[in-house]
Amino acid sequence: MSTRYFVGIDLGGTNIKAGLVDEQAHVQSKLSIETEADEGVDHVIGRIGQAVELAIRQADVSQSVVAGVGIGSPGSMSHKQGIIISPPNLPGWHNVPLRDRVRDVSGLPTVLENDANAAAWGEFWAGAGKDITDMVMFTLGTGVGGGVIIDGRLVRGHFDNGAELGHMIVVPDGEPCGCGQKGCLEAYSSAAATARRAIAAIEAGEASSLKSQLDAGQQIKSQHVERAAREGDALADRIWNEACYYLATACVNMQHFSNPQRVVLAGGMTGAGDFLLDRVRKHAEALTWQAADDLPDIIFATLGNDAGLIGAAGSAHAAWREGELG
Amino acid sequence: MSTRYFVGIDLGGTNIKAGLVDEQAHVQSKLSIETEADEGVDHVIGRIGQAVELAIRQADVSQSVVAGVGIGSPGSMSHKQGIIISPPNLPGWHNVPLRDRVRDVSGLPTVLENDANAAAWGEFWAGAGKDITDMVMFTLGTGVGGGVIIDGRLVRGHFDNGAELGHMIVVPDGEPCGCGQKGCLEAYSSAAATARRAIAAIEAGEASSLKSQLDAGQQIKSQHVERAAREGDALADRIWNEACYYLATACVNMQHFSNPQRVVLAGGMTGAGDFLLDRVRKHAEALTWQAADDLPDIIFATLGNDAGLIGAAGSAHAAWREGELG
Repeated sequence: MSTRYFVGIDLGGTNIKAGLVDEQAHVQSKLSIETEADEGVDHVIGRIGQAVELAIRQADVSQSVVAGVGIGSPGSMSHKQGIIISPPNLPGWHNVPLRDRVRDVSGLPTVLENDANAAAWGEFWAGAGKDITDMVMFTLGTGVGGGVIIDGRLVRGHFDNGAELGHMIVVPDGEPCGCGQKGCLEAYSSAAATARRAIAAIEAGEASSLKSQLDAGQQIKSQHVERAAREGDALADRIWNEACYYLATACVNMQHFSNPQRVVLAGGMTGAGDFLLDRVRKHAEALTWQAADDLPDIIFATLGNDAGLIGAAGSAHAAWREGELG
Repeated sequence: MSTRYFVGIDLGGTNIKAGLVDEQAHVQSKLSIETEADEGVDHVIGRIGQAVELAIRQADVSQSVVAGVGIGSPGSMSHKQGIIISPPNLPGWHNVPLRDRVRDVSGLPTVLENDANAAAWGEFWAGAGKDITDMVMFTLGTGVGGGVIIDGRLVRGHFDNGAELGHMIVVPDGEPCGCGQKGCLEAYSSAAATARRAIAAIEAGEASSLKSQLDAGQQIKSQHVERAAREGDALADRIWNEACYYLATACVNMQHFSNPQRVVLAGGMTGAGDFLLDRVRKHAEALTWQAADDLPDIIFATLGNDAGLIGAAGSAHAAWREGELG
């Protein structure tokens, strides 16, 4: 039997990324088109159909060897039912049966996956976890996304909200989080939280080299906090260090939950390189127990922005392999 | 084919509990003999062999329909290799290949399981989780044991230290734990921690109705803290409430990790009944997010002290069903 191919779709509010991936996780084609979300649900589903077609055509393979489509989408969803509930980046979408609609428009069996889970599955299938069986991923972007693979299986959770690791409570009664909880990992270790906490401290009167930037009405991002911390700014260093410390706490907690071989870090914050990784590792080594020598390796993801696309295709591949691709 | 039976062994430092359990998780026989741990490894393994034989004889079934033995044991172990590393309740035991030795002495295929995992599996197979697929268990005894079942599978972890939920860090730089970490759940919500924290507060000069008991040289246990809290003692109430609060925090964290249907509470602390359960539920409802309505039900275990025995037999049953019982 000839090799099968899978289309991966990374659905965002601005762009739809698509690609064709083979059974060995090699990317055969890759493209991005605008989502045109303003035009409504039907239009966007038509755009997804076009992206699927383009990805196949660009790779120059016959449609007959394409076994399925995987879609990675943000927000709450039902993986089992294939419904996206209320995606934050697609306003006006409510309970859209995206899986079945894409199946209808593409003529291909389709699976729907949470975007953080898809990215983790991509790294597991083809990236930083491709040679192991047990992996945890934290995606440190505007929020903190999570993904957990146990013995080669993705943890989706009974209510399809599994591995929401950004909402692990790491500080009792701590910083408020957009989810309604307090003290979530996301409220300390995301790029948005890092910037927000630095701004709040300056506005509360703390001295910082970032103050002039703020006073000039310029935006402060996590990269600015990182740079100021590197340059010795005490406030920025404290905020950056806390982001690393609570992420290390979360790594230790995952050590005691799923006990993985590796924790993989992805997302915008990893642009800081060793300035992030060294501190997270140092804190994790100081925080972890003495009862066993099982602290996972903490490393960076390797697929960059393609992880979501590859993982979405990989999700279709995994379902196909299990005989579950409708 | 006639029903198969499985021997469950709950290995403790004082007693060896044994029982014969059928494929439907019905207990056919149950007994307890002394471990006689002072007599050394070989003697104890002989005792386990006797317990297996007695459990089968007491149930009056033929050895030919007994498919295997499951042993639940505390302490670090390698499930895959069947070795117990250094069980705290069996001094002098180091790297004992318990699985293979019990197989040799009993003539039956044998599996080795961590005791907390075995108890969780027992509740999942035959108790508080028997009608569901995704469950988390906390055993609140001297320490806090954990067990996680995802989609009908026990989470053992890559290094066989998975679901060590008592060592989830719930307070940054918090109370020291015996494991070497600080701020572990076990350092707040175990029976031993509840008693220890009350004693420490009294010794530090706080007023409490428990002071006279302490001054008289009498032991203070978690039940005393519970009773004093019920009677309105402010210190005892605070300690008891914190035990419930951090357990609720751990429940919310598990909601976001494996996203189970139920969290099951077991162990000595559950003797407090609704005085524990109501507070844990109340705190969990206040702590959890607004993003989805997926807080798991928090309920008590139903098998009592038999959970370990039934779960050990169930572990052998599960391995047999998967064709993995050597």
